Amino acid sequence: MIQKKLEVIYKPFDKATRVPPGTTLFSAAHWIGLPIDSTCGGRGTCGKCKVQVLEGGAEITTADRKQLRAAELEEGWRLSCQAKVYEDTTVTVPELLRVPKAATMGVNRLVLLDPNVRKVFVELAEPSLTDQRSDTERLRDALTAEGFDMKVELRVLRTLPSVLRDAEFKVTAVLGGDRLIAVEPGDTREESYGVAMDLGTTTVVGTLMNLKTGMAEAVRSTLNGQAPFGADVISRISHGMQGDEAKTELRDAVLRTINTILSELYESAGVGRDRVYELVIVGNATMLHLLLGIDATPISMMPFTPAFTDPLYVPALDAGIDIHAGGYVQTLPVVGAYVGADIVAGIMATGLAREDKMRVFVDVGTNGEIVLGSLKRVLCTAAPAGPAFEGSQIRCGMRATEGAIEGVTLTDHVELQVIGGDIAPRGICGSGLVDTVAQLRLAGLLDAGGKMRSREEAPEHPLSDRLIMVDGVRAFLLAENVYLTQRDVRELQFGKGSIATGIKVLMDVMGVRATDLDEVLLGGSFGSYLNPESAKIIGLVPAVDVDHILSVGNTAGEGAKMALLSFRERQVAFELPDKVEYVELSGRSDFNDSFVSVLQFPELETVQ
Amino acid sequence: MIQKKLEVIYKPFDKATRVPPGTTLFSAAHWIGLPIDSTCGGRGTCGKCKVQVLEGGAEITTADRKQLRAAELEEGWRLSCQAKVYEDTTVTVPELLRVPKAATMGVNRLVLLDPNVRKVFVELAEPSLTDQRSDTERLRDALTAEGFDMKVELRVLRTLPSVLRDAEFKVTAVLGGDRLIAVEPGDTREESYGVAMDLGTTTVVGTLMNLKTGMAEAVRSTLNGQAPFGADVISRISHGMQGDEAKTELRDAVLRTINTILSELYESAGVGRDRVYELVIVGNATMLHLLLGIDATPISMMPFTPAFTDPLYVPALDAGIDIHAGGYVQTLPVVGAYVGADIVAGIMATGLAREDKMRVFVDVGTNGEIVLGSLKRVLCTAAPAGPAFEGSQIRCGMRATEGAIEGVTLTDHVELQVIGGDIAPRGICGSGLVDTVAQLRLAGLLDAGGKMRSREEAPEHPLSDRLIMVDGVRAFLLAENVYLTQRDVRELQFGKGSIATGIKVLMDVMGVRATDLDEVLLGGSFGSYLNPESAKIIGLVPAVDVDHILSVGNTAGEGAKMALLSFRERQVAFELPDKVEYVELSGRSDFNDSFVSVLQFPELETVQ
Repeated sequence: MIQKKLEVIYKPFDKATRVPPGTTLFSAAHWIGLPIDSTCGGRGTCGKCKVQVLEGGAEITTADRKQLRAAELEEGWRLSCQAKVYEDTTVTVPELLRVPKAATMGVNRLVLLDPNVRKVFVELAEPSLTDQRSDTERLRDALTAEGFDMKVELRVLRTLPSVLRDAEFKVTAVLGGDRLIAVEPGDTREESYGVAMDLGTTTVVGTLMNLKTGMAEAVRSTLNGQAPFGADVISRISHGMQGDEAKTELRDAVLRTINTILSELYESAGVGRDRVYELVIVGNATMLHLLLGIDATPISMMPFTPAFTDPLYVPALDAGIDIHAGGYVQTLPVVGAYVGADIVAGIMATGLAREDKMRVFVDVGTNGEIVLGSLKRVLCTAAPAGPAFEGSQIRCGMRATEGAIEGVTLTDHVELQVIGGDIAPRGICGSGLVDTVAQLRLAGLLDAGGKMRSREEAPEHPLSDRLIMVDGVRAFLLAENVYLTQRDVRELQFGKGSIATGIKVLMDVMGVRATDLDEVLLGGSFGSYLNPESAKIIGLVPAVDVDHILSVGNTAGEGAKMALLSFRERQVAFELPDKVEYVELSGRSDFNDSFVSVLQFPELETVQ
Repeated sequence: MIQKKLEVIYKPFDKATRVPPGTTLFSAAHWIGLPIDSTCGGRGTCGKCKVQVLEGGAEITTADRKQLRAAELEEGWRLSCQAKVYEDTTVTVPELLRVPKAATMGVNRLVLLDPNVRKVFVELAEPSLTDQRSDTERLRDALTAEGFDMKVELRVLRTLPSVLRDAEFKVTAVLGGDRLIAVEPGDTREESYGVAMDLGTTTVVGTLMNLKTGMAEAVRSTLNGQAPFGADVISRISHGMQGDEAKTELRDAVLRTINTILSELYESAGVGRDRVYELVIVGNATMLHLLLGIDATPISMMPFTPAFTDPLYVPALDAGIDIHAGGYVQTLPVVGAYVGADIVAGIMATGLAREDKMRVFVDVGTNGEIVLGSLKRVLCTAAPAGPAFEGSQIRCGMRATEGAIEGVTLTDHVELQVIGGDIAPRGICGSGLVDTVAQLRLAGLLDAGGKMRSREEAPEHPLSDRLIMVDGVRAFLLAENVYLTQRDVRELQFGKGSIATGIKVLMDVMGVRATDLDEVLLGGSFGSYLNPESAKIIGLVPAVDVDHILSVGNTAGEGAKMALLSFRERQVAFELPDKVEYVELSGRSDFNDSFVSVLQFPELETVQ
């Protein structure tokens, strides 16, 4: 999996990079911030991205023959988007994209605006007895002249003759890659939209993106309508195993959720559904299976195999998703049954596989997905963390909504941060739970084994009156009717122990220690809200300097946006599963050994 | 359009051929009867077709890099199916396909059995914790090992997990090209079928082909259900112009016809619909448009432009055609609005564009489509012949069904050949009409200008009592209540004059004379039944030796079968429209000039 890197030098800039064999000269340049000019975005059809190979070699491709003259080929000119590097290479780049539109997304990632959906306005010559080309050829020829390829589909063909003639042959072609999604009368280039969707087991977030400007026009999030069928993926799959009707029920539920979000997005931004051509969706493998009506049963059983891991580009109509009737749904690839497209999006958004820094990225949830590495090598795994971080199975646990305690500080009194501001707390959400446990450790009310002190054991402690008994179990009172029990602590120990073990196994496989880590990134809808210091104190993450533990937000959604706005980034995402090594924890003896050792909380001197 | 040919020599056979630049070494060998071994049929995925380039060159392709070792590339080995010829080349072929299955089809054309639909039986390793590949990857890896590529679609994915597990991972993959049409439990390789369909304006003929043996299992033909909406393409299109409902009516009518034929084929051959994976359909441009629900209006109006000419590969479900739910409908390409896929199939079936002989191929009907040429150059056109040849607009005309006079000989009495044998004739069909006119010419009862003699003008003629008057118009009595009128002769003169002019224009453009023609081929459901001598006497075809005027049968249907049974032949068909030059007759001054001159019948001494 690890290949010898090759050096590529770009003249006249003298910029150099090292890439795996088979990388194109175009991609390699893009990654080091040299945006080579291109209309077609690297599909080999516009001919603008040509470079001259000075040293090294690149075979002549069919696209080269089409776009370049024989004399140019002779002089070493090649289309950089087709030229794959198989030896150290030096090239001259004649022209960079002058004003690349770019946006900073994810974790400081610069993304060039180059969506897979393109709109091309053409004024076609009208047919005559000396020019009897078919409507398809006429349109294709015009698009080819502009550097675009086109595959026509039946749905568009059916009305193409009348659309062309009613519009007097002045039309805008809408392309999704090379598929002709629509032909619209007149010039509609200003109106081009797509949706990035993060399909979480619990929460679904959709962002309507303007593909012309790269800006978000509207955002909506709501609970996944499958929630009544179970809180986690296993219970959802179990429901589906009751039969075809149950499978349909699951699919319909999530489609209702998505389509409701879509109609709200359209309403809120004042954008018509017919101007929304693509939806990029990420989620764990189970969510993607259930969405597309694909049997997910084997994901839930040993040895945990999904039906597919590849990215799918599915007609929106087939998927049942309410965007343009000719539009497409793009799923990002998944690595395996428990490292899904949300994590692939996270790797994109954090740039983890493209930078030199050694980083660990953790998406904390019912399953803790963990990615460790740098551009040299990337490992990943999934650790079953149980429901503690989502706030369920916790006596006073609740989701992170109004009334939830999300932050806790213990001094000689209790300071609470409650979602919704100055209101009476109703329960504890995941981040509040982690804070409480960490603060109890710091306050000396919880030992390294996880045992809570009783009021009798700490009579002098300023918070001793908070140490109560609930149904015969020790507990710590946070607010009226809201407390943390000894059992809750055990649940958290199990959860954090599982994730910490996963991290440890990956670090062992990679051969790195905590001191080798440049950064720890906490992501996911829950992880982002964790207090880094608390995460460290409870031993959820390795003992690095707390400044190097970063919340990175909804990386899944960010990755989906990047893939929506940039064809290149999407290609990078497609290749990630081959670059990422999955480490299966089930059945690993070192997992079980480690697990026992990390159930404990770290000694305080090691984490402060 | 005409390119310099390059020489390719195949060692150790010392067989040589001359091909256009860009032809693959594999195709060129196939065309001269050297079937190079291949599992994947020339898709670049099996690696079996490698040849060693001794002289000339072939660039290294991505497929070469995948399939061949570096040392082999160094020694000049290339995949012949990927290696395109751009200079004179000599290669060594290590291995020919030992027992190529082949069938003679069309006009003496040897077709190697290599259908686009392939079935591959695989026994997959069951998933385990050390092998967690997705179901898709598992299947793809097994197919890749056998030399096949595969693209998976949502419909198959939905049930893939349960199909694999229920069948204990022993399944048959059904591929249409690289699309995964189905995954079937167990080994079903023996059951693989497709349908070749000739969608005529008047008649629709379907043949159920066994893709394993290459044999026809059943044939059915019936009238096109669109007949009530008009006899010819123009009236059908006019009906459709009444609105969307009328368009739907037309589409539904032909779909009913096709699906009825299909169910009869299945019934008759005892073959399940779920074992029929592909339907190759040919027809004129209008028929294909109406079948697929594509607006055909511009075909009927100057300047006569179709919506598409490309071959389409459409999911059978989208097209509404009752084969396997994952199956595909393949249309062959059309050359233009009035030279359709039926003619492209005819060019395939006759081999007109692949042989040295100079030939003219005429499909006689309401439109006479004409193709002239050889492997060096091919011209085609369409001549509006009017309804005479189909038997309509003729006083006693009828279709070629029971009771129709289909053959006539005049001596001192009248000899009739009637469809259905020894029954009373009810009318005249096209071939009977042509025979009658030719025989009247020979009998001296019709002059070169087309004027019929009256009983008064030929009182001594043994057939003079057959010369009658009907409603004040001269006529020739063939049988009780069945006669040919002077007006009928005029109709035929118009029809044959139009076709003869078309032929003449093409011969002028090509620069050939009648003596240069090696053969005249009469095709189509009507042309095949024409008496070659009569066709010559009335001047429908050029004055060549009558032995060189051949009926070639239903070439459209034959071409469809060839494309169904052979992926290579299909590729050849796809390329035909680029190789065939269309000559538009409308607005051509020489067409109008010629037309007047060929309305006359030829002098008898020139045609006997």
